[in-house]
Amino acid sequence: MSDSAAEAGILEARRGPRRFAVLVEGSLGVLDAKTAVALLRYAPGAACALIDTMHAGKTAQDVLGFGGPVPVVATLAEALAHGPDALLVGIAPVGGQLPAAWRPVLLAALDRGLDVWAGLHAFLADDPELVARARANGRALVDLRRVPATLPVAAMRVREVGARVVLTVGSDCNVGKMTAAWEVVQELARRGQTAAFVATGQTGILLAGRGLAVDRMVADFIAGAAEALVLEAARAHDLIVVEGQGSLVHPGYSGVTLGLLHGALPEAMILCHQPSRTHIRHGSIAIPPLTELVRRYEDALAPLRPGRVVALALNTHDLDEPAARRAIEDAARATKLPVTDPVRYGAGVLADALSSLVSPGGLAP
Amino acid sequence: MSDSAAEAGILEARRGPRRFAVLVEGSLGVLDAKTAVALLRYAPGAACALIDTMHAGKTAQDVLGFGGPVPVVATLAEALAHGPDALLVGIAPVGGQLPAAWRPVLLAALDRGLDVWAGLHAFLADDPELVARARANGRALVDLRRVPATLPVAAMRVREVGARVVLTVGSDCNVGKMTAAWEVVQELARRGQTAAFVATGQTGILLAGRGLAVDRMVADFIAGAAEALVLEAARAHDLIVVEGQGSLVHPGYSGVTLGLLHGALPEAMILCHQPSRTHIRHGSIAIPPLTELVRRYEDALAPLRPGRVVALALNTHDLDEPAARRAIEDAARATKLPVTDPVRYGAGVLADALSSLVSPGGLAP
Repeated sequence: MSDSAAEAGILEARRGPRRFAVLVEGSLGVLDAKTAVALLRYAPGAACALIDTMHAGKTAQDVLGFGGPVPVVATLAEALAHGPDALLVGIAPVGGQLPAAWRPVLLAALDRGLDVWAGLHAFLADDPELVARARANGRALVDLRRVPATLPVAAMRVREVGARVVLTVGSDCNVGKMTAAWEVVQELARRGQTAAFVATGQTGILLAGRGLAVDRMVADFIAGAAEALVLEAARAHDLIVVEGQGSLVHPGYSGVTLGLLHGALPEAMILCHQPSRTHIRHGSIAIPPLTELVRRYEDALAPLRPGRVVALALNTHDLDEPAARRAIEDAARATKLPVTDPVRYGAGVLADALSSLVSPGGLAP
Repeated sequence: MSDSAAEAGILEARRGPRRFAVLVEGSLGVLDAKTAVALLRYAPGAACALIDTMHAGKTAQDVLGFGGPVPVVATLAEALAHGPDALLVGIAPVGGQLPAAWRPVLLAALDRGLDVWAGLHAFLADDPELVARARANGRALVDLRRVPATLPVAAMRVREVGARVVLTVGSDCNVGKMTAAWEVVQELARRGQTAAFVATGQTGILLAGRGLAVDRMVADFIAGAAEALVLEAARAHDLIVVEGQGSLVHPGYSGVTLGLLHGALPEAMILCHQPSRTHIRHGSIAIPPLTELVRRYEDALAPLRPGRVVALALNTHDLDEPAARRAIEDAARATKLPVTDPVRYGAGVLADALSSLVSPGGLAP
């Protein structure tokens, strides 16, 4: 698929057998380390060490409750003992700039023979100092958010292909849209149903080895990027699950969310939410009730193509077992839709909710 | 205001006493020549010649019904006789690339001592051939869509300033959002009420001499750009009219529209529409009824800040007088809001509708 991907401007960044030292300084155990979290959860063996002075000496399991024995170390020098071949910048800060304090670490990593990978808005390969150092050491800089400058403006071309499209949508940033998409694709695979996972953000691209960071597109081409991704995936798949971004009610990122919705034109949506969160992160906006969110997503799509929210994925990682079960029951009662936490209880409920798209009546096998 | 503008990354491109030869080949008299149309209408004397072989020999007045004796000529060489000091690329094609056939014209213009201005996505100043030629001739390349790579992510900071914000919104692209904003600001000025016109697209920037092309921002910063523009305007103005972009129901550009709405956080909106248009341009999507559009814009804004559509601006340029009056009456009856065509009948109705924002009870003078 490389030719068609290149044609669509889709980034290919296959990990191969890579071993990453993951720089998460100060972020481990908090939500901002989502790239590192996803790697530990879904790409076992890909992270050989985490660099975070706050938790040095522990393991990923100690700090996060998963990730097994991957060590947390205080310095790059210590990480090197675990045999990395690349340094991964494991956070995605608001605004996407490289924290100044990390620059010396990146330079040192290049000097020690590592490639450097990141998903920042500020591209490594646009930084003269990093470029010079990479060149001097014969190392590569990989920008997971690198996108083409332009693409065709979206024009609802998704309607012209037979593939069925699912999009994860959310109440806020960082509630589990990538996770729900990834989990349901894995669950479908276990059932013998092949679906494409379409990555639209740096973490998804890291896991999938390909994709387009829609939040990095020039604004006129957000929907065009989503459309290009779906059309490309439709060449090889009948069922396509697209990783969502942001939220229609997020003051900073709602434009990305609506563009992605109007480019991907999903028939089915999975609404993702963290029950413990009452307000949009970094702001004072109350998250609307789930029923209102369902209405908002369906209503925003309606003029272009009818699509329904078919299930909810809750992120209950900060709730105890009874509270998690109660949150799921409450959401199911309020929305009259199937609900689960795909990380805690598996994605079976979500895969079931997509069964109408993969049934004999549908186009997928 | 230059210091604060520079701080906010706002482009300043003052026209000064410039005389433009405007390249509109094949587009004059059709909607895509909107940059040229706006210049002729709102910056008298700024265009000294239009280049379009299809209408050569006529005047702007002949072809457009306004613009007076500005000649339409077939070639750059003929345009030079009218004393331009810059060539302006007067169209904004979908996708924003420079038509290949125009490259020789731009190169020739530089050779003949003209600067070149454009509002394309593909920047003149990123084109090695154009840059080399401009440098060789000591001429300037001005990209009206040039924006900073990053800005702060929007965070509803508009709520912290006292200024009242108005945004023009639309049923589609190219229905008159910039025009309505420009006209109402002029009408307010005639009434002795100073309001800021905030430009968010290449044509508005050309007219105002400053602004940010929000559709050219990296997607994560659409709302941030709108916020930066409003905050900067609020330093000197109590009433701010922001030029809208796209439409919430446009498959290609809806993300820009929602981001702009959530960054600018208007208290009042003016809904712009062309009554003769039943479907979104370049597509098959039916434009929803006006009442539904009013609801969609108010609803999309509601979770962040309440704002109302307070008037409608219709673009009736392709209707005869009775049909135009009927369209206005129909829209007023359907929406129960004040309606006018600000080009045809003046923007008095729109300025009246904003009176609650500029009354003694309001913050503006």
